[in-house]
Amino acid sequence: MPKKQTLWVTAADVARRAGVSRSAVSRAFSPTASIAPETRQRVMEAAGALGYQVNQIAREMIMQRSSMVGVVTAGFENPFRAKLLSQIIAALGRQQLTPLVMNAEDPVQIKHSLEMLLSYRIAGIIMTSASPPLGLARQYLEREIPVAMINRASDLPGADVVVSDNAAGAALAARMLVDAGATRLAFVGPTKTSYNGKSRRTGFVRAVQRIAKDEPRLVDPVLVHATEADTYECGVAAAQAVLTQTPRPDGVFCSSDLLALGFLDAARQHFSIRVPEDLRVVGFDDIPAAGYENYRLTTIHQDTSGLANAVVEMLIDRMESFSGASRTYVVPVTSVVRKSCG
Amino acid sequence: MPKKQTLWVTAADVARRAGVSRSAVSRAFSPTASIAPETRQRVMEAAGALGYQVNQIAREMIMQRSSMVGVVTAGFENPFRAKLLSQIIAALGRQQLTPLVMNAEDPVQIKHSLEMLLSYRIAGIIMTSASPPLGLARQYLEREIPVAMINRASDLPGADVVVSDNAAGAALAARMLVDAGATRLAFVGPTKTSYNGKSRRTGFVRAVQRIAKDEPRLVDPVLVHATEADTYECGVAAAQAVLTQTPRPDGVFCSSDLLALGFLDAARQHFSIRVPEDLRVVGFDDIPAAGYENYRLTTIHQDTSGLANAVVEMLIDRMESFSGASRTYVVPVTSVVRKSCG
Repeated sequence: MPKKQTLWVTAADVARRAGVSRSAVSRAFSPTASIAPETRQRVMEAAGALGYQVNQIAREMIMQRSSMVGVVTAGFENPFRAKLLSQIIAALGRQQLTPLVMNAEDPVQIKHSLEMLLSYRIAGIIMTSASPPLGLARQYLEREIPVAMINRASDLPGADVVVSDNAAGAALAARMLVDAGATRLAFVGPTKTSYNGKSRRTGFVRAVQRIAKDEPRLVDPVLVHATEADTYECGVAAAQAVLTQTPRPDGVFCSSDLLALGFLDAARQHFSIRVPEDLRVVGFDDIPAAGYENYRLTTIHQDTSGLANAVVEMLIDRMESFSGASRTYVVPVTSVVRKSCG
Repeated sequence: MPKKQTLWVTAADVARRAGVSRSAVSRAFSPTASIAPETRQRVMEAAGALGYQVNQIAREMIMQRSSMVGVVTAGFENPFRAKLLSQIIAALGRQQLTPLVMNAEDPVQIKHSLEMLLSYRIAGIIMTSASPPLGLARQYLEREIPVAMINRASDLPGADVVVSDNAAGAALAARMLVDAGATRLAFVGPTKTSYNGKSRRTGFVRAVQRIAKDEPRLVDPVLVHATEADTYECGVAAAQAVLTQTPRPDGVFCSSDLLALGFLDAARQHFSIRVPEDLRVVGFDDIPAAGYENYRLTTIHQDTSGLANAVVEMLIDRMESFSGASRTYVVPVTSVVRKSCG
């Protein structure tokens, strides 16, 4: 880091001192360029005399790897992902790594961006998106650039994965709903499009099967309602579908808090159902709005800081030694009891 | 971009072919390093023969400027800022610029991160934080790196600023409250710590003064309640303070939607006040939760896409020609009428 310099020495300064053109300076630093050995040497000497800086970029070019890490995310407007992104940026910073963030929701941009990252020779890439472009991720792995993913299936050989303990979280939700008196349970979540939706449904269905052995009043199997996505609006639509069933479910596990907020609002406002007296609702994530006075949502807390630290640690391990099979690290979850489940 | 290569040619490959050490390859690319001209030439020839890539980093080192833009933000958990960040990343991407994102809320990280950006010779920096470290911003300007800011005072000579039209938004809010029948108005916002809080208060107070000339029932001046920050919890606390006043205000302009959500919940649940019958509430931002069925918040919509495009355009202008006085660009706002203001 220059301390007292007000402006860098530029290639133009070097060109002036060496008595060559600006483009000759460029060519001197470019291995494939055509340039006379004497000219190159003159440029190098002028550069050295002027203190033309071997800057971070130059250093990293020489080291063949930068301190930059690509972070591919989607849905900044989902509060859980926003919090997770914030924690990832903080965790990278603590390791002197710089995040290059890109939004996977923009299909035109994401391919260009990932190729751009490749050209920067980034140190690694973290994918938090529900649907990262695996083809491009594979290009990173082929170049021995570590790839680590959060909350998705470990379906890419060589990529490491950090996941929240969805099975344990779903089992906690089932237990809280049953303990609060619910006997007709429903699951709401994007079971077709999302890893989290799928694995939380599986965990919930299995937990209910186990509990039903000791609870004869508990109806098994549970009603499963697949949503399009993980949004408030999908939660409202799910309530319309689930709460018109006969007999009506009296306990609902939503695979995300945003779904649960929509479900709660629709249950109260369209069906005049009392929560938790007539309907118990449990969410997943623990976003800020879960604590709002209107919602007081009982939910499963995801440890965003734990997820972020684990994914950065895995990435750093891989930077030091790329070889070895994919690993999966499971981060524990906890229940947060508020008012929506008795 | 390499197309079919599975791994880059590395410095080690070049060293092998040139019959020199790995460190000689590094030194050949470093102007200040001590190396015999013949050795340097040998390295350059080997590099050229192997197609040792002139990669993005090398190209940018030569061009003295990268395609990376630093984006300093704060409060990812604020949905408005999350949306704005998402739009900035998209707008940069459309210009083939790559965002390096950092969180200004982490004081230890931010200084290191900004110095890091400096060493990358970034093309510019965008500050969306309420409190960017101006001392460090000044270091960028001294190096003729463009600095552009969103929604803050233009108090840094040489830096460009993009702001939402706070005065017009506040006047719209005043007009909607009065038209809905409110006569005792209050303003709630972080007037001490935030540019937005300050300028929206000023705009609101002035608009009410103007309207009061034609509306004899309208009480002037308005009650101003300063909050600590722009959070839901501050909105709840503000309701406790404002709604215990005698006479009680019947129209409230909150300088952000998060404040308004907390204010609304507390008004209903702690004071059993009917909204909008007994109390009209208008927010600012138009975050997703403003549309939730429980809130249906009437608010002032900020054009996040317009703000993002404007800030990136200003930055690109400065990249092309650094000189010239600071400019301020004002982005229009619009009202979104839902149910909280009659």
